[in-house]
Amino acid sequence: MRYMGLLQTYKEYLPVTDNTPMLTLHEGNTPLVRAEKLSDELNLDIYFKYEGLNPTGSFKDRGMVMAVAKAMEEGSRTIMCASTGNTSAAAAAYAARGNLNCIVLIPNNNIALGKLAQAIIYGAKVIAIEGNFDRALEIVREITAKHPITLVNSVNPYRLEGQKTAAFEVCDQLGQAPDYLAIPVGNAGNISAYWKGFKEYNAKGKSSSLPVMIGFEAEGAMAIVKGEPILNPETVATAIRIGNPASWDLAVNAAKESGGQINYVTDDEILHAYRTIASKEGIFAEPASAASIAGVMKLHKEGYFKGGEKVVCVLTGHGLKDPNIAIKSVGGDLLVVQDTEEAVMDAIRKLEGAGA
Amino acid sequence: MRYMGLLQTYKEYLPVTDNTPMLTLHEGNTPLVRAEKLSDELNLDIYFKYEGLNPTGSFKDRGMVMAVAKAMEEGSRTIMCASTGNTSAAAAAYAARGNLNCIVLIPNNNIALGKLAQAIIYGAKVIAIEGNFDRALEIVREITAKHPITLVNSVNPYRLEGQKTAAFEVCDQLGQAPDYLAIPVGNAGNISAYWKGFKEYNAKGKSSSLPVMIGFEAEGAMAIVKGEPILNPETVATAIRIGNPASWDLAVNAAKESGGQINYVTDDEILHAYRTIASKEGIFAEPASAASIAGVMKLHKEGYFKGGEKVVCVLTGHGLKDPNIAIKSVGGDLLVVQDTEEAVMDAIRKLEGAGA
Repeated sequence: MRYMGLLQTYKEYLPVTDNTPMLTLHEGNTPLVRAEKLSDELNLDIYFKYEGLNPTGSFKDRGMVMAVAKAMEEGSRTIMCASTGNTSAAAAAYAARGNLNCIVLIPNNNIALGKLAQAIIYGAKVIAIEGNFDRALEIVREITAKHPITLVNSVNPYRLEGQKTAAFEVCDQLGQAPDYLAIPVGNAGNISAYWKGFKEYNAKGKSSSLPVMIGFEAEGAMAIVKGEPILNPETVATAIRIGNPASWDLAVNAAKESGGQINYVTDDEILHAYRTIASKEGIFAEPASAASIAGVMKLHKEGYFKGGEKVVCVLTGHGLKDPNIAIKSVGGDLLVVQDTEEAVMDAIRKLEGAGA
Repeated sequence: MRYMGLLQTYKEYLPVTDNTPMLTLHEGNTPLVRAEKLSDELNLDIYFKYEGLNPTGSFKDRGMVMAVAKAMEEGSRTIMCASTGNTSAAAAAYAARGNLNCIVLIPNNNIALGKLAQAIIYGAKVIAIEGNFDRALEIVREITAKHPITLVNSVNPYRLEGQKTAAFEVCDQLGQAPDYLAIPVGNAGNISAYWKGFKEYNAKGKSSSLPVMIGFEAEGAMAIVKGEPILNPETVATAIRIGNPASWDLAVNAAKESGGQINYVTDDEILHAYRTIASKEGIFAEPASAASIAGVMKLHKEGYFKGGEKVVCVLTGHGLKDPNIAIKSVGGDLLVVQDTEEAVMDAIRKLEGAGA
């Protein structure tokens, strides 16, 4: 049977009416892959929810399909967001699919065009302003308040509704909720959405337990951990480089209600985890994604777990979103040799001798 | 229920024994997305088999999981391939997953390291030789013939066995085989694997019909169409830039047996199709992938179809594999305006007026 996307699959749990178009790019239905080696090493039962295999390469597709379908239902012809990354890609893709216009507002300060490749190829109109990101978001809010243009940044309430479906899938895939749900925290919407999803599934009797929610900010952007907004957030994990999370209170509440916590990881811990899951488990996720497993490694060192618990780590986006960081992160020059069998075999033996 | 990958799902159709490890990154199970607008425009019932949502971003994962699992079963500790693209990414990922060493041999002529980002982060050892790609493949063949190292280039017979599972999925998703299967042709292995898969499923009674196979080479690399190897193949669709296809005879046979054809498309047709499926259908595939739908557009113009036929176009890899071509292909400078609501609204109106 053909999988028909999130709105069709989970319509009874979503704000789907008879008039909601069944928009889909077949988002969701992402793999839950067991971390074979890390489970052994940390004496846990660890799984990755690999959200990079959504159509545009990140979990944002879950919320965006819901937000764009509702915009269509309400008769909107144009959607708009401020974003330089995953949100703009998802918005542009679903706008293309739903035959809407998509306007993406970005700050004009050294934005790498590569980050906008998806928005551009999906046909979004990208406008840069002489101002910073916060100003771009302000202008989007002003314009969408006055004109018949739908705001699809994370303040759009349908975004979290769509995102909560990832919790449903985790329960369906495991047969129950995990003991722990580890997740990167940037704008803090995703941890809030997962918690909402777990609670709803539990209330409907689809899973008999609730997980402990453990969220991880990047050290250079740890607003919630510090208890105050960060004016100039900095981290290699650009997808969670956010100084004033939109869903702050919801995230704190998710951690508190579930008996969990919002903690932080350093850039070094993030990059170590990023390389580890690729080279040991064969999974390539963007650096921000690795904050979840980096956080589990950190808590394991601190003796947080008893041992044997089932832990799901959310990997929010595909590593192909930022291939340059992969090369920078591993480094090393290319080994160049003569084009003979002997020269190549010598090189192989040398690499193996070096612990390769 | 959790999807457990190709070897588990299709083991009765694959060379899987009691000793074959159930290696998986949860490859396969990729979406079959209907092309809503192009179906209307071309008066066909068109679907995309979106293979870019495999774990490493291309269909190569299907063949590689089978090849690497068999290498493990046979006690191999190291796999090796000559590749600068999708094959090296898949080989490196499954080697990491299966705890094998992976050696990737490449020519040392201006290889963009970005293409190797995946192989590197998954932990493959990349060696460049002072020679061209054909020489690299020769050396791989020499070494793997003499040493206990497993060749995983497309001459490895298990590759096609794994790849044929995509045909099974298409039949399962549609409830039957489509009328036409349109597919890019480079090394010509994939069209051969699909045809094998369709025939096997038909023989087992899982689908009552067989599709007509229509394959498309890029004009600058159309060895099969011309009937002779191309010495210096050139096309924007790098993943099918191959002058002497390894599975030449199998591909010709698939086209002949099914009543289909091997045809070609120009780079302009490929790039037009590439932009069209992104901006109209919301699907971002690498340029080579677009050869399938470009070919359908070409045959439609020539009056090849009656109308209403079910056509599945294989999209072999994700657009994120080559983001730079997206930006180059669409072009245009960034529109920069003042950071006021009025300036942004003026820009939006201007874009809309320009037919945006």
